[in-house]
Amino acid sequence: MVNYRKIINILGLLLLIEGFFIGLCVMVSFVYGGYDLPAFIKTFLIITAIGGAAFFSTRKEDSSIGKREGFIIVGLVWVMFSIFGCLPFVLSGATDSVTDAFFETMSGFTTTGATIFDDIEALPHGLLFWRSFTQWIGGLGIIVLSLAILPILGVGGMQLFIAEVPGPTKEKIHPRVKDTARRLWGIYIIFTGVQALLMLLGGMNLFDAVNHSFTTMATGGFSTKQSSIGHFDSAYIQYVIILFMMIAGTNFTLSYFALHRNFRKVWENDEFRFYLTVIGIFTLIISVGFIILGESSAENSFRTAAFQVVSIVTTTGYVTSDYLTWFPLFTVIIFLLMFFGGSAGSTAAGVKMVRVLLIFRNSHLELKRLIYPHAVMRVRFNKQVVSPRIISNVMAFVFFYIAILLFSVTVMGAMGYDFDTSFGAVAATLGNIGPGMGAVGPVESYSHIPVFGKWYLSFLMMLGRLELFTVLVLFSPSFWRK
Amino acid sequence: MVNYRKIINILGLLLLIEGFFIGLCVMVSFVYGGYDLPAFIKTFLIITAIGGAAFFSTRKEDSSIGKREGFIIVGLVWVMFSIFGCLPFVLSGATDSVTDAFFETMSGFTTTGATIFDDIEALPHGLLFWRSFTQWIGGLGIIVLSLAILPILGVGGMQLFIAEVPGPTKEKIHPRVKDTARRLWGIYIIFTGVQALLMLLGGMNLFDAVNHSFTTMATGGFSTKQSSIGHFDSAYIQYVIILFMMIAGTNFTLSYFALHRNFRKVWENDEFRFYLTVIGIFTLIISVGFIILGESSAENSFRTAAFQVVSIVTTTGYVTSDYLTWFPLFTVIIFLLMFFGGSAGSTAAGVKMVRVLLIFRNSHLELKRLIYPHAVMRVRFNKQVVSPRIISNVMAFVFFYIAILLFSVTVMGAMGYDFDTSFGAVAATLGNIGPGMGAVGPVESYSHIPVFGKWYLSFLMMLGRLELFTVLVLFSPSFWRK
Repeated sequence: MVNYRKIINILGLLLLIEGFFIGLCVMVSFVYGGYDLPAFIKTFLIITAIGGAAFFSTRKEDSSIGKREGFIIVGLVWVMFSIFGCLPFVLSGATDSVTDAFFETMSGFTTTGATIFDDIEALPHGLLFWRSFTQWIGGLGIIVLSLAILPILGVGGMQLFIAEVPGPTKEKIHPRVKDTARRLWGIYIIFTGVQALLMLLGGMNLFDAVNHSFTTMATGGFSTKQSSIGHFDSAYIQYVIILFMMIAGTNFTLSYFALHRNFRKVWENDEFRFYLTVIGIFTLIISVGFIILGESSAENSFRTAAFQVVSIVTTTGYVTSDYLTWFPLFTVIIFLLMFFGGSAGSTAAGVKMVRVLLIFRNSHLELKRLIYPHAVMRVRFNKQVVSPRIISNVMAFVFFYIAILLFSVTVMGAMGYDFDTSFGAVAATLGNIGPGMGAVGPVESYSHIPVFGKWYLSFLMMLGRLELFTVLVLFSPSFWRK
Repeated sequence: MVNYRKIINILGLLLLIEGFFIGLCVMVSFVYGGYDLPAFIKTFLIITAIGGAAFFSTRKEDSSIGKREGFIIVGLVWVMFSIFGCLPFVLSGATDSVTDAFFETMSGFTTTGATIFDDIEALPHGLLFWRSFTQWIGGLGIIVLSLAILPILGVGGMQLFIAEVPGPTKEKIHPRVKDTARRLWGIYIIFTGVQALLMLLGGMNLFDAVNHSFTTMATGGFSTKQSSIGHFDSAYIQYVIILFMMIAGTNFTLSYFALHRNFRKVWENDEFRFYLTVIGIFTLIISVGFIILGESSAENSFRTAAFQVVSIVTTTGYVTSDYLTWFPLFTVIIFLLMFFGGSAGSTAAGVKMVRVLLIFRNSHLELKRLIYPHAVMRVRFNKQVVSPRIISNVMAFVFFYIAILLFSVTVMGAMGYDFDTSFGAVAATLGNIGPGMGAVGPVESYSHIPVFGKWYLSFLMMLGRLELFTVLVLFSPSFWRK
């Protein structure tokens, strides 16, 4: 039997936490005096009332939750947060479409960064802050999810990345999650603060610095400016953001080790090396290309290339240059990079470097097995043998990713979008990136997508964010049996 | 030690066989009196001289060949056939570019059907016949390769499809290959003859009937007409071609069983059912769509949809309607179908139905394993358990397919082609289909591709035709070691 009482209890608690976050927005809105203040107050009241009722009416000592409840809660929390989190957009009148508001909020909590607003700078500070804040909260949530909860649920080979952070290793979910979470959140908060400070020093104002450090560390990509980071014509600020996007796209466990001066563990991590290699190679190709084409100075070429490569690989989605207008090769590269994704255990989404690496290594072995059919050869990761079970799991993940991608491209095609736009929109939402190609390119918004399309793409964002399996399993009949 | 003497001997023999085929073209050219006669005669002399010299100078009793020699021969034979087979195009002056001639010939032998000729009907009958004939020969070769040779070499999980045709099962390559080949070629020739006859009855002239039955059974797609099958405005002829494309895309072992009235074996074949299901579903979607859009009669809608779906799924590449001008959803579907490919053991190329099916089943199991982590669940195919080794092999194949695809898209991007064209050209050549998207769409040719691009795409055709591994293994250092 599924313990629905406990599920409602936990969701109620989480809703109260969202209420607390909305409370912070009330203050921001009050300070900046925007028209959105009443909307935030109403949202705060609604959320705390419903959250409180759900939480307190279902309290009961000693009831525990199992795997099944875990899947249901994880599957529902992003939906619940988006349903309630979209209220400020609707109640303030910033948009009169519930669909748009939901899309924007899901885009926030999933750290996607796709927007339906065509004039971002017209939004009041409270709403701008809430957009950035949803991403930061989403990033916070995903670190716990990917490093503490998903490995226990056995999702998508994530066992491989179970926090090696020293700590209690008892099998009960609760103490481990709590402990791991506390350490990783600490790092997340520290990095966010440091980045904001560095940007303040670069001349960015407090509001923009806070918002952009939120959406950088979450690899979210919402900006307070219509032209994204292109607005800040400062090499210093762009380099700071490049650096922190790279940190945000790195496994937070590695950051933990780095902060404890255990650099060997960082450097010997296969995924981290692969991540740096991919970024390095493609930055190099594009910057050299820019220099050869003679479009701008060497420094500017390097910065533009590095910024966009890092932004896409880490699934952030910030933009300093419209990559659709680049020389075709470079546009194609940017598009292909959408399928790598950042590191596991980071706030980045997508397929993830470690999966690409494992599949690459396994495929190379298959080639060798052709020549030495009787030799025993095993895939290794961080010098350890990877069990075939995990390889199979990773393969299945990639297959589902591709299958969902292709199916969704036909869904977009059914709405009359051309191949570029269809492919771009799906890759950018499933991969939690934000800007795509064609009519959803880096200088466009998602406002023109029909209602059904927006709900569908919102679903893709959640699917991509929750490592596919977590959501797919809820649609499997076997899950509900017995 | 690699037995180069034996390799040269076998290649010499194969070249003599190609010379025999060219001899047939000499006759065709003579009968139709085209300007290409001297070119065919010269080619015949060159090929038989070189082939004869290679064959007779290296004859030696009792030398056997191993796996390594097998890979080298398979890798070289398509290149050799194309190098010599392109001579008639060059020597006749039909094209003054060796690159174009090589591309066209490789496109023939790999049954791709991509052309560099912009005015096909201006070609003399001899050359038209040679184009179709290269495809038919390629189809003949691929049946033996995929059902008799590759399984022994252990390539790409093809062990799974080893001919179940009753026959000698000794482990030595020679007798098995010979026996299997004879039976399957018989079927191939019978089908080709029956199709030609049916088209003659439909009013097609002898030359067109023979050429199109050649390129249908080979799932090649070269036509003697500029507007492909669209030229023949006859429902009867189009239905005949649909039927025979479907037969050509079916495992020839199943056709063997069907001809021996063992229909149960055909119907219980999982791949065959999946193949029919895919064709059925997408034909249905597109025809219903056409009817709703009200563009033509129900029959015409069904025929146009079925023709193009079957043509693409079987990697034939015939065209009766420019699918790029269809409603976007249908264009996208056609494009996605390029990645299925026909059945293993047929003349079709691409990823192949059985691989898609196995990956689908394995991924579904992974989802179930999340819920029942301790249950033992195995993928089944034709009611038998599939070993994890084969699953891993199939996964590696698909990974290499995708990796090569994406890498090649960037190569095309580097030549300045947009995303549609890059993706389309790569998908259509790697999948041995022919027409792609964008500037290499169904009403365009490949003539505008730069020289390097043509050689690169020719390489992709071969890679796709030889199940990737057969070629890739030659590039692996371990292959050449010891």
